[in-house]
Amino acid sequence: MRRRDLLVGGAAAGLAMPNVARAQTPKVRWRLVSSFPKSLKLLFNSCELFARRIGELTDGEMQVAPFAAGEIVPALGVFDAVSNNTVECGHSLSLYYTGKNKALAFESGVPFGMTARQHSAWMWSGGGLELTRTLLSRFNIVNFPFGNTGAQMGGWFRKEIKSLQDFKGMRMRIPGLGSFVLARLGVVPQNIPAGDIFTALERGSIDSVEWVGPYDDEVLGFDKVAKYYYFPGFWDCAAQNSLYVNKDVWEALPQRYKTAVELAAHESYTTMLAAYDANNMQAIRRLIAKGVQLRQFPKDFMEAAYAETFKMYDEEVKANADFATIYKPWFEYRNRLQQWFRVSEASYEFFVYGKQ
Amino acid sequence: MRRRDLLVGGAAAGLAMPNVARAQTPKVRWRLVSSFPKSLKLLFNSCELFARRIGELTDGEMQVAPFAAGEIVPALGVFDAVSNNTVECGHSLSLYYTGKNKALAFESGVPFGMTARQHSAWMWSGGGLELTRTLLSRFNIVNFPFGNTGAQMGGWFRKEIKSLQDFKGMRMRIPGLGSFVLARLGVVPQNIPAGDIFTALERGSIDSVEWVGPYDDEVLGFDKVAKYYYFPGFWDCAAQNSLYVNKDVWEALPQRYKTAVELAAHESYTTMLAAYDANNMQAIRRLIAKGVQLRQFPKDFMEAAYAETFKMYDEEVKANADFATIYKPWFEYRNRLQQWFRVSEASYEFFVYGKQ
Repeated sequence: MRRRDLLVGGAAAGLAMPNVARAQTPKVRWRLVSSFPKSLKLLFNSCELFARRIGELTDGEMQVAPFAAGEIVPALGVFDAVSNNTVECGHSLSLYYTGKNKALAFESGVPFGMTARQHSAWMWSGGGLELTRTLLSRFNIVNFPFGNTGAQMGGWFRKEIKSLQDFKGMRMRIPGLGSFVLARLGVVPQNIPAGDIFTALERGSIDSVEWVGPYDDEVLGFDKVAKYYYFPGFWDCAAQNSLYVNKDVWEALPQRYKTAVELAAHESYTTMLAAYDANNMQAIRRLIAKGVQLRQFPKDFMEAAYAETFKMYDEEVKANADFATIYKPWFEYRNRLQQWFRVSEASYEFFVYGKQ
Repeated sequence: MRRRDLLVGGAAAGLAMPNVARAQTPKVRWRLVSSFPKSLKLLFNSCELFARRIGELTDGEMQVAPFAAGEIVPALGVFDAVSNNTVECGHSLSLYYTGKNKALAFESGVPFGMTARQHSAWMWSGGGLELTRTLLSRFNIVNFPFGNTGAQMGGWFRKEIKSLQDFKGMRMRIPGLGSFVLARLGVVPQNIPAGDIFTALERGSIDSVEWVGPYDDEVLGFDKVAKYYYFPGFWDCAAQNSLYVNKDVWEALPQRYKTAVELAAHESYTTMLAAYDANNMQAIRRLIAKGVQLRQFPKDFMEAAYAETFKMYDEEVKANADFATIYKPWFEYRNRLQQWFRVSEASYEFFVYGKQ
């Protein structure tokens, strides 16, 4: 028997063995730390699905163990933990880390940016993945799109908002570039992880909160304290979740495992977005039935926020070369893509939504 | 050395071997027949990407060979070829096979249905995959979402369309349920595969043609013959491409390969939609620069088509139990999901598109 035949025979026989036998001696073990608690299952399920798929694709030779926020790494410590190789990989959103560099925000999405689908076109076919990877490689991280929430809600407010004036002095939980935009309009923003927001809102240390959308927000119980639920969440018009892998860990991985990671991340992306749409659709009906007051943001607030957002981008382009490098192609792409979406996609949507 | 160690060692050593060595003795060989020519590369590239990924995930132990339309199976013969196990798998759209059963159309999408993202939510989180799989299993086929074109264009017309009246007697290339709707409005529809449409249009044996959107349509050269380019293509408001696998072939596959097929199909889905958006965005600009006249369908045509579509669905529900089984939950899902999309997603889009 030639050596090649022996190897092929060994692999084939291995295929027929129960996974558990292989699982006792994995060749690769990764810890996957999430920025989210297990209770937010649309987010955390992605980590569990990913882990299961990697096990299936490698017959248990590569194992991924998911950990919720705080189990081994704090919610907002995921980026540093992956960057420093404290853990092999993590699940988070780049918008939490704009304190390091505002340019990071382009990876998850920025205020008045693209919809989830447009963001995906930019990432996979428009150079977005390459641009964000170049930036993240400086932090020793390789990023993969891992999910999206779609356009988020504008959040929960104790009092009805009549105009831009009502935002002055408001203490609001909001992270990322959106927090800088709202600060320019008089808001006092705070970045608080999921597990601590309800208490802050209930005790009155914040006046309002934006989190994600109906499903997650209902889990966190915000409707028990604030009755006015506003839209649209223009600062998170799409919020791409990412899988962050330590760059040295990634580069040491055999090609077959690399492909497994990439493809399992694709599945996570599509199924997370689908799960958000399906579950938000049901949750919004429950919230309305409970007496939640759905409201659209006042026009003067939307217009002022739009103007301040692009002023902020222009300032940041001058101050931050990393921001400028991504912003310029991103902005042109966004504009051209939205011009195209206005044609068949939006004209169809406008017609058919008018019938509902 | 214990038997398990030997096997694990064999598999590990196999990992380090070049793929080409393994590739000479694949354990599983599939032929993947597409309904599309190689020239329509956004469609055909998915087959090539899928084949490459399956090879990578299995170290060449499973090989998929993609074939373009007509190479071994005719464009519109893909469904039967997979159903009969003439080939192991195929890439097509269910709307081509409504002659067998109109209920099949729900898998790719139906007139005045959901957008690509909404369709995905229905498929992956709303019971759509289960409902369509139950129907397709009767044809001995297992289906996987494999891509989407997004909302298509309404197509190319030699003459400007002023009103519904202009459709009477028009010979138009259009397949699927859209062809039945337009027939009720006086159109004479024809289902012609990609390779034959240009000649039919050039010779005047058809007056108009709908295919997909700017990128594909430019490749097929329709702008050389017809100057008016209409939107929206409400009959293909989303057109899900599918991977069809023969059911017996699928069931014989080891779990690791099954997972590989499922995940490679997810990647194909996300990257095809991204590639359509990115390439259509560029092609529409080129077409306009060449003098193509972009036009919105007249309102009386849209309204008449909407009314006829739902009359047709009501008739089909009474005549076809398979159609009724899928239509009822689909219709409720569509309505509830579109009501939810009107809130944050559409209000954001309307605001930001208004700025373009």
